[in-house]
Amino acid sequence: MIHDKTRELVMQSSGEEPKRIVLLLLDGLSGLPHPQTGKTEMETARLPNLDRLASRASGGRMLPIDPGVTPGSGPAHLALFGYHPFQVEFGRGALEAMGSDFDMLPGDLAARANFATLRRPTSLSSIVEDRRAGRPSDAENRRLCAKLSAALRGGVEGCQVHVLPGKEHRFTVVFRGGELSAALNANDPQREDRPLIDILPGTPEAERSAHVVNEFLEQALRILADEPKANGILLRGFSNLPQVMPFRERYGLRAGAIAAYPMYRGVARLVGMEVLGAPKNFDEEIQTLKERFAEFDFFFVHYKPTDSAGHSGDFAEKVKQLEIADAAIPRIEELKPEVLIVTGDHSTPTIHREHSWHPVPTLILSPLSLSAPGARFTERGMMAGDLGTFPATQLMPLSLAHASRLMKFGA
Amino acid sequence: MIHDKTRELVMQSSGEEPKRIVLLLLDGLSGLPHPQTGKTEMETARLPNLDRLASRASGGRMLPIDPGVTPGSGPAHLALFGYHPFQVEFGRGALEAMGSDFDMLPGDLAARANFATLRRPTSLSSIVEDRRAGRPSDAENRRLCAKLSAALRGGVEGCQVHVLPGKEHRFTVVFRGGELSAALNANDPQREDRPLIDILPGTPEAERSAHVVNEFLEQALRILADEPKANGILLRGFSNLPQVMPFRERYGLRAGAIAAYPMYRGVARLVGMEVLGAPKNFDEEIQTLKERFAEFDFFFVHYKPTDSAGHSGDFAEKVKQLEIADAAIPRIEELKPEVLIVTGDHSTPTIHREHSWHPVPTLILSPLSLSAPGARFTERGMMAGDLGTFPATQLMPLSLAHASRLMKFGA
Repeated sequence: MIHDKTRELVMQSSGEEPKRIVLLLLDGLSGLPHPQTGKTEMETARLPNLDRLASRASGGRMLPIDPGVTPGSGPAHLALFGYHPFQVEFGRGALEAMGSDFDMLPGDLAARANFATLRRPTSLSSIVEDRRAGRPSDAENRRLCAKLSAALRGGVEGCQVHVLPGKEHRFTVVFRGGELSAALNANDPQREDRPLIDILPGTPEAERSAHVVNEFLEQALRILADEPKANGILLRGFSNLPQVMPFRERYGLRAGAIAAYPMYRGVARLVGMEVLGAPKNFDEEIQTLKERFAEFDFFFVHYKPTDSAGHSGDFAEKVKQLEIADAAIPRIEELKPEVLIVTGDHSTPTIHREHSWHPVPTLILSPLSLSAPGARFTERGMMAGDLGTFPATQLMPLSLAHASRLMKFGA
Repeated sequence: MIHDKTRELVMQSSGEEPKRIVLLLLDGLSGLPHPQTGKTEMETARLPNLDRLASRASGGRMLPIDPGVTPGSGPAHLALFGYHPFQVEFGRGALEAMGSDFDMLPGDLAARANFATLRRPTSLSSIVEDRRAGRPSDAENRRLCAKLSAALRGGVEGCQVHVLPGKEHRFTVVFRGGELSAALNANDPQREDRPLIDILPGTPEAERSAHVVNEFLEQALRILADEPKANGILLRGFSNLPQVMPFRERYGLRAGAIAAYPMYRGVARLVGMEVLGAPKNFDEEIQTLKERFAEFDFFFVHYKPTDSAGHSGDFAEKVKQLEIADAAIPRIEELKPEVLIVTGDHSTPTIHREHSWHPVPTLILSPLSLSAPGARFTERGMMAGDLGTFPATQLMPLSLAHASRLMKFGA
C-alpha cells in the first residue's frame, strides 16, 4: 500500500502540459522455460522493440502480491494500481459481477448464484437435490438467465434485478435500488438432501435487502417451476462494491483505461479511472489511446492475448502474441509519453496453463531512467536492474517519481 | 526501523578492544548516465580504491526511504542511521532549520516564517494585506534577514534569535535559551484581510516561549517599519528537535560524527552521536578521524562535495569530487577498522540537479564479507551482490552483524 506520507508528496496537476504516463499491461506476460529448449516464451520470442526499451529503461521485476502468492486478475490489477488486495475487502459477488463486465455502482448488492435442483413442490424451504442442477451447458445457463431477466424486467420491490450468466451452473445476481446492505447469510445448505436456509438480515440495516432478496427468490421459483432440473437458486457471497480512494485523489492523475475485456474495465472503474471507448482488440485499443491522448495524465492499456495463450498451454501461440504486442510499441512511442511502463499483472507460464506467482519483468522508461545497455526484456534479463525486485504496490510511486510528480520528502 | 527483536540482539561493548565501524557517507553519491556517453558519474570516474574495496566487500544498493520517494538530506540520514523518517515526528520549523544547515540543539524553538505586508500602522493585531509580501527575491530575503539579525544581535528576553534566510518570502527563526516549549499557535490567519492571531501558550510550560516570541514580533515590527512591503512576519510550525532513542542505547555503540557541514552535525547529534572537532574540509575530517579513532566504536564521516556538484549540474566536477573521495580511502584503511562502509544518503544525478529516489551503491567490508571479485563500485556494478537492494533502515543491523555485534536469535 502506498504510505500515507508518500501520498502527501503527490503533486496535483498544474496548469502546464502534463507529463503523461502510459502503463502498457501485457496480461500474464512472463512464463517458464520450455522443457525442450530451456527458453521461456519471452526468451523465444523476437521482441526487438521491447528489448530496445529495456536497454534504455530502468528495469526490474515486480512481485504481484507476496512471494509464492498467485493472484487472480482482479487482485493483481488492484495491487499494481497501488491498492493492496489483502487490504481491500472484496466480496465474491462483487468480484464476479466485475468479472462479468457489469458496471456495479455503490449501493448495489451482488451475490454469486447457482442453478440448483430442488425437491418438488419448490419453496423457500425445499430440500436441495442437486446443488449444480446437473451442470447445465453454458448455453443452457444463458437461456435460464435470459428467462429470469425477461420475467423480472419490472424489478422486485422497487429494485432492478440484473442476472449475469456464467459458466455451467454458476451465475451472478445484482440488485440495484438505493443502499442495499450485504449483511445477509447464504441460503445454500452446502450439502445435498438438506433444506434451503432462510435468508435473514444480519443487522437492522439489512432488513430491506433481506426482503428484496427473498421476494426475488419467491418469484424466481415460480419462473423456474417448469424447468426439469434448474428449478431453484442458491445464493451466497452477498457483497457491495468495495470503496477505495479514487485514482485522481490518490495520485493527482486524470486516468483513462483502455481495455477490450470487461473485467479490466471494471477494476479500472473501481479505482476511479474513466473507461475509454469500446475497443474490440489491441489495434483498436492503440487507436483509442491515440485519439484520447490529450485528455488524460495516465493511461492503462490492457493486452489480453498473452494470458489467454498461457492458459491454453500453447507455447508457440504465446510467443506469437508477445511478438504482436512488441510490434505495436512504436505506435505508443510516437505519442511521446514522459513515462512508458511495460509490465504484466502476473506470470502465466504455458507449461503451467495457469497464473503463477513468479515476479514479472518490468521496465520504466523516462528521462530519469537508469539504463541497462544490452538488457533483454525477459524474465532472466530483468533480474538485475535499477528497480530490483519490488512489490507491485510500489509501481505507482515509482511511476509518479519518473514523471516528476512526487515532491521531495523533507529538506 | 530496526525491529525491537533485532534490537534485543545488540551486544553492549565488552572490555575487549572494540571492533570499530567506519561509515563513510558520500553525499548524493550516485547519479544517472550522461546523455552523450551513457556512463554515470561513478562509471566515468577513476575510483581504483573504491573498486578494490567493492571486489572484496559485500555489495548492494540501499533504498533511501521507499521506492520512488526522494528524500531531503535530513530524512535520508535519519533513515540510514536506522530511524525511519516517516515515524519520527519532525516539526516543520525544526525541519527547515536543519535544512538551512543550522545546528539546532535540544531546547531550541524553531518556526517557519513568512515576510508579509501588514496594514499600517503595524501592530500585533494588524490586518494582513499580503501573506507573502509581494514575493520578494531571494536576495531581498537575505537582506531582510540580515537586517533583523543585526538589530536583534543582543537577543530578546535573554534568548538568542537566529534568522535563517530561505526562498522568496520564506525564512526560519530559531530561539535559543534554555528549554523553550513549542506549544504555541501560529499567528498566521491563513487568509488575507484578516488580523494577525495572538500567539498564546498552549500549556503552562509554554508561557515563557509565548513571551519571548511576542517580544520578538514587537521588536521585528519596529525594525521592519520602514519597509515598503515586508513590514510584518507570520510564524507557524513551532517545533523543537524530535527526541529519538540515542545511538548508544539503541546499538550499544559510542558514536562520533565528523562533518564539515552543520546540517549533518545536527542530525548526528539528534541521534546521540558526539560531534567531533570542527573540520573545515574532508582532509581535516580524515585527520579528525585519525586523532579520535581510539575513543569511539562507530564513526560517521560525511563528505559533501559529491552532492554539491550534483546540484550544480556539473558532471565533470562530480567525477572529480568522487576521485578526491576515492584518493582518501587508503588513509581510512590504515586505521584498520573492523568494518568499513561506503554509501550515500541518496542519489544526486547531475542531469537532474536534484536529489532522486534511485537506490545508492553500498559496500560493507569486513572479515565476514561475501566478496564480488571484479565488481566495480558503480550504480550498475552494485546491482548484483550480497546485500541486494535493501532499505536504508537496515544498514545499521547489517553493520552491527559485520562487526560481530549482533547475537544469534534463538538456539
